[in-house]
Amino acid sequence: MKATIVTIGDEILIGQIVDTNSGYIAKALDKIGVQTHEMISISDDKKHIVDTFEKLQNNVDLVIITGGLGPTKDDVTKKTFCDYFDDILIEDKVVLAHVTQLIEGIYKRPISQVNKDQALVPSKCTVLFNKMGTAPGMWMKKENTVFVSLPGVPYEMKYLVDNEIVPKIVQEYERPYIIHKTILTYGQGESLVAERIENWENNLPEFIKLAYLPSPGRVRLRLTARGENQEILEKAIQENVESLTKIINDIIVGFDENETIEVVVGRLLASQNKTIATAESCTGGKIAQMLTSVSGASNYFRGSVVSYATDTKISVLGVSADVIKERTVVSHEVASAMAIGVQKVMKTDYAIATTGNAGPNKGDSNAEVGTVFIALATPNEIIVEEFNFGQPREKVIDRTVNKALEMLQKEILKNLQ
Amino acid sequence: MKATIVTIGDEILIGQIVDTNSGYIAKALDKIGVQTHEMISISDDKKHIVDTFEKLQNNVDLVIITGGLGPTKDDVTKKTFCDYFDDILIEDKVVLAHVTQLIEGIYKRPISQVNKDQALVPSKCTVLFNKMGTAPGMWMKKENTVFVSLPGVPYEMKYLVDNEIVPKIVQEYERPYIIHKTILTYGQGESLVAERIENWENNLPEFIKLAYLPSPGRVRLRLTARGENQEILEKAIQENVESLTKIINDIIVGFDENETIEVVVGRLLASQNKTIATAESCTGGKIAQMLTSVSGASNYFRGSVVSYATDTKISVLGVSADVIKERTVVSHEVASAMAIGVQKVMKTDYAIATTGNAGPNKGDSNAEVGTVFIALATPNEIIVEEFNFGQPREKVIDRTVNKALEMLQKEILKNLQ
Repeated sequence: MKATIVTIGDEILIGQIVDTNSGYIAKALDKIGVQTHEMISISDDKKHIVDTFEKLQNNVDLVIITGGLGPTKDDVTKKTFCDYFDDILIEDKVVLAHVTQLIEGIYKRPISQVNKDQALVPSKCTVLFNKMGTAPGMWMKKENTVFVSLPGVPYEMKYLVDNEIVPKIVQEYERPYIIHKTILTYGQGESLVAERIENWENNLPEFIKLAYLPSPGRVRLRLTARGENQEILEKAIQENVESLTKIINDIIVGFDENETIEVVVGRLLASQNKTIATAESCTGGKIAQMLTSVSGASNYFRGSVVSYATDTKISVLGVSADVIKERTVVSHEVASAMAIGVQKVMKTDYAIATTGNAGPNKGDSNAEVGTVFIALATPNEIIVEEFNFGQPREKVIDRTVNKALEMLQKEILKNLQ
Repeated sequence: MKATIVTIGDEILIGQIVDTNSGYIAKALDKIGVQTHEMISISDDKKHIVDTFEKLQNNVDLVIITGGLGPTKDDVTKKTFCDYFDDILIEDKVVLAHVTQLIEGIYKRPISQVNKDQALVPSKCTVLFNKMGTAPGMWMKKENTVFVSLPGVPYEMKYLVDNEIVPKIVQEYERPYIIHKTILTYGQGESLVAERIENWENNLPEFIKLAYLPSPGRVRLRLTARGENQEILEKAIQENVESLTKIINDIIVGFDENETIEVVVGRLLASQNKTIATAESCTGGKIAQMLTSVSGASNYFRGSVVSYATDTKISVLGVSADVIKERTVVSHEVASAMAIGVQKVMKTDYAIATTGNAGPNKGDSNAEVGTVFIALATPNEIIVEEFNFGQPREKVIDRTVNKALEMLQKEILKNLQ
């Protein structure tokens, strides 16, 4: 089964908002073996929408459309959708009751005509009931292609994908078998990894594809096997992951799409009943954000102090004003004192602290742009390392975050032995 | 001038990464009057790439391609790009010197063949020199369409867009005039705003388009005027914004694409020489993130305490353990104590604190999912409000962040008078 995801909205084409809906939909489809052939973003323009539908008609099995179902005048999707199927709009009683309950019951406002119009749907469509909002999803088929129109608000779209579309596809369509296996490595660049595994890569079977997904400090390797026989695919993936592991065992940190270093670190902390806190200056809370992005983080993450102002380093973290004066805020000594300080106030086993100059300007400390000190307080010692991560700003921050988590992982593993 | 942005990469089509490059490019093009007609994401497959190029050939003036220029085997873009122009790859001496300097000089590694191959470019292309990485951009023209290929790493792509592509287009092509004006409103939903401005909207001139961009708690209205005569467009936009302001003055907070509530609040704080800190539980640092996303935030933002653990609320923020025991962590009293605590330790004029249950489960406090207390400490008083923002989790967090900033803005304005 082959799908194309279409996003409708001028705001995307002028770069005012980033389309995150398509990625969510593609991931959900991929899990049930539906291949996303293309993603397309087009304008809120009737002709553009119809032209796109016509190009996709009978070329893919499924078209999922998001956006343009809101109550306002610039939302042309529903009318265009209805016209494309030579249909008329009728009022759906269940949807109207839901919209009325939402507006009058929850929002405590009188219902308006604009609100009521949300309950209009093409007469021949299957209504996908939207518990999360006022615009329903609509499922219609023309010749060999199913067209599904969804609201663009992310949590409404997600609700409909998870609770309506995926179950309907699973029930009604046959799909091939797909396995993905992701290997997370860190510490070596894409080219170096590629060279080390060149022979292995050349020997991969035809039905397994390899992709490199690099980001600062880490490379994810993704294997995709596609075919009819689940057993053959699983066996081939397993064998090839084993032979790969022998070659690059020193840089592998995990084996799962969601097996990022923050997941690995989180599991290590949880299994040891250890806790962590962060004190962040140049990373502005991003290490804490990475740690708390993992479900269950509240079991080991106790909190974070984002100390933008120098005063905060002194008053909250207990860094000595003299040390700051003597060594500047971007120094080995301040990083170390921040880590010790947050470890103490948050009463944790481990603590990470960062201080540096991420650029673009030199700032007060006079440290070169790209200079970063990372301190790690463990139950036994304080480790401080100095780096220069170059530029631009976002790369410096990303590399600091990754390096800090990498240092943390190494130390937890060391303390296990 | 009409453009299409093409993103190449299987990792996007399975939803493993979200394409943020296209949005950046579209925004840069829009600023110089180049209209993005479509954005397309396709697979790392030679035939798919060629088919896409052929469809775009002579239908748009400009095609910008990102992704697939890395050094590894799965990157087929460069070879396909070269074949499409019936060209051959030759070594570019300047690029090779740069790659060598980067690998040997900065990364301190011997240069490999894979690295050297990065310096291969089609013989007829204009090389766009990539100071930020090893893969150069490539600019080529066929009949009426320019094709530009860029690396997919975001900061490399951004560098080439800002320093090579935009200046080249501005110098070599004539473009129409485009003005966008965004009006930021908060506190009323999309349908309600639409009803209030219906008459005004019906009287907009043909060359001005209106779009509604709703997100939890706020609606941005975007006017776009397009034409040849700059003066006429500017006058019409100004007149229509003035007449709109008369109608919905009570909910307008700003007038600029970047004029979000955090920008407005930041400007108010900076102009009054006032400072702010946050103590966040259910929002996990997101209010701090919003405040620090504004350039120059270090002038008024002093820091943040993300207090995940109850202990942290006691030890760092000085919330009384008895109060927590008696009232639970999700309470009027704890929110208030957190705001007072962070205002004191960070020595600020204003402080925001949040505590609540964003879901999906009830948690320790037994508070209903969606319950949030926001406390605002000002130089004169403490204001605490209770809300129920419903579900899901992300909506609760977003609405809390927006409401907190809205409360802050109102209080700063009140203290001005």
